Order: sequence, then C-alpha cells, then structure tokens
Amino acid sequence: MKALEERILSEGKILPGPVLKVSSFLNHQMDPDLIMEIGAEIGERFKDEEVTKILTIESSGIAIALAVGAALHVPVIFAKKHRTSNVSGEVYQTMVHSYTHNVDYTVVVESEFLKPDDNVLLVDDFLANGKALEGLMELVAQSGGRIAGAGIAIEKGFQDGGSNLKAKGLRIESMAVIDKMDENGIIFR
Amino acid sequence: MKALEERILSEGKILPGPVLKVSSFLNHQMDPDLIMEIGAEIGERFKDEEVTKILTIESSGIAIALAVGAALHVPVIFAKKHRTSNVSGEVYQTMVHSYTHNVDYTVVVESEFLKPDDNVLLVDDFLANGKALEGLMELVAQSGGRIAGAGIAIEKGFQDGGSNLKAKGLRIESMAVIDKMDENGIIFR
Repeated sequence: MKALEERILSEGKILPGPVLKVSSFLNHQMDPDLIMEIGAEIGERFKDEEVTKILTIESSGIAIALAVGAALHVPVIFAKKHRTSNVSGEVYQTMVHSYTHNVDYTVVVESEFLKPDDNVLLVDDFLANGKALEGLMELVAQSGGRIAGAGIAIEKGFQDGGSNLKAKGLRIESMAVIDKMDENGIIFR
Repeated sequence: MKALEERILSEGKILPGPVLKVSSFLNHQMDPDLIMEIGAEIGERFKDEEVTKILTIESSGIAIALAVGAALHVPVIFAKKHRTSNVSGEVYQTMVHSYTHNVDYTVVVESEFLKPDDNVLLVDDFLANGKALEGLMELVAQSGGRIAGAGIAIEKGFQDGGSNLKAKGLRIESMAVIDKMDENGIIFR
C-alpha cells in the first residue's frame, strides 16, 4: 500500500534489532485516516471470504482491527494479554512469547465470542517471527472455528514468520512488506 | 446516545461492585459500527474546539479514540500502561490507581507527541471514579498543553468522578450516563 510505504519511509526509525519504530503514526500515536485506509484495504482483500469475526491482540492491533471491522461490518475481538495464567471463567487461552520484550504472556479470549461456525480474520500491526499470529490461530483452533487469513499492516519479510505461516497454508495480506532494512534505508518487496 | 443506551440494556450485564460488563460490544468484543457512531457523536460535540490531539489509555479506550480521531482527522495517542516506573527515554508519566484491578500502574506518553500548543481531547470507554482521566490530565499538564474536554462512552453517574471533574471545570461529554444500576435494572440520566 503506497500510502503506508511512504509513511514508513518518511517517519519510520530503524533501531538496533533491527526494530522499526513507527510510533508516530501506527502504534503509540496513530494517524486515524491512514489506519482507516489500511482497514479498508485489508477489508477489500478479504471481502469475498465471508468473514464473521476479526481477531487481534492488545494493544497495538486494536486500532487496525477496528478499521477492518468498520469496512466489513463484523465484530472485532481483541485477545487480552495476561502475565499470569490465572484466568477465570470460560476462556480460550494460550501462551505467546514476545521477542521484543523477552517475556511469555497468556492471551485470552472469552469463549462466548468465538464459535465453531465462525470464519475468523486475524489482524495485527506487525508480522515478524509470527508468534502472535500463531497464538491467535491456536485460540481459533480451540473454538473449532475456521481462519479466513491474516491482514497485517507491516510484515518484516526478512524474518521467517510470514513465509513459515504461508507454507502452512495461511493466507496473509500485508500492506507493506520490508525485505531489508539497515542504516542504508528500507527496501520494500 | 440512544443506540448505546439500547445496547447497554440489551447486552450489558450487572456484576457485583457494581460492575457493568459490556464486553460483547465495547471492550473485548467490539461492534465497529456502534463504535464508529460513538466516535462520530463525540467528534460532533467537540468539532468547534479546535482539537489538535486525542489522548486515551490502553487498551479499551483505543477503539473509541480512533473513531473520534477518524471524525476529527487529528492524531490519536494512547498512553501506555506499565507495572513499573522504569521507563526510559523522553516521556511524560504519572501513576494511576485501578480500583477494578486494585493495582497502581504508570501511564506513559513519549514527550514528542504532546506539545505546549496542543489542545487535547481525552477519550475513554468508562468514567467512574475519574482516576484514569486525572492521569491523562496530568500527562497533558506535564506537556504544557491545554485540555479541550473529555469524551466518554459510558459514565457511571452514581460514582463521583464525573461530578468532581466537572466541578474543576472539565467539559465532559458522555454518550450514556447511568444514574442507577442494580438487580432491578439500569436507569439512565
């Protein structure tokens, strides 16, 4: 998506890791017009898939997921992160490892919101190693529902999460795929 | 707002506290059409205030704040919650007590996103004791910016946060104000 790539080039900062910092428009401060445009484009790509639910993970996936939901007019669920596994009530839950923060956390969805007849579109702001998406896929698997695919704002194509998940049959639509980034700049796929 | 009140009556659950559980449409599963409508209405109420930024707090304020931002076409910032006060970099930060979870947490905004010439609209899903709003007001105060007011989805009018903050001069626009809720039902203002 041209508008997103241009914004990454003009405002993104490359930190050691390499980490791409896009907190001026995507995941701390957010440009709502750009996010609604990202949501509309992801919605357009999946409009024939009969998506019944959108599932993301707090916090930085929420805005994009809402924008996709506004385009497709289906409910949006955000899985909650807990540091403990002491979650009460009827829930689906699994463990996700965050490489960014080097911590394991439990992600939880109340079971009443995901059903066997749901066709779920996963949404997140970043795809790198794929651990967050795998966690969301596990929650849907627990519910017995199907997965329509994944809509991602920025995929780090130089990490293997995207290619591994595509090899397993997941349809992934990323609005910007970065093949390379270093002190010389960013190369999009 | 009629649509929100009707949804609270049809799907809200009153738990001991009293806590109003609206996780089927507002803050775990979200109805994007309703949230966009709430955002448009809050935007409409503040459209003459020359708002330059919207500020909310993760996670459940993010969707509504994005919807307000989409209506007013201004950047949306979400303050991040940390359990520790070990936050690095140039930030505004303050402590907020959560009565729901009985825990203190630090809320943080990178200082580059709030400036002295900003006129900030605060947005949140709930207003009860007002501690979250007070925390956001403190962050804006640290930046030297002004506060245009607060746009809230659901105000618990039987708790004193709203009346205390209004007495201090804060303009608050709540889309639904609950004056009473118990086993007999919900009474709106």
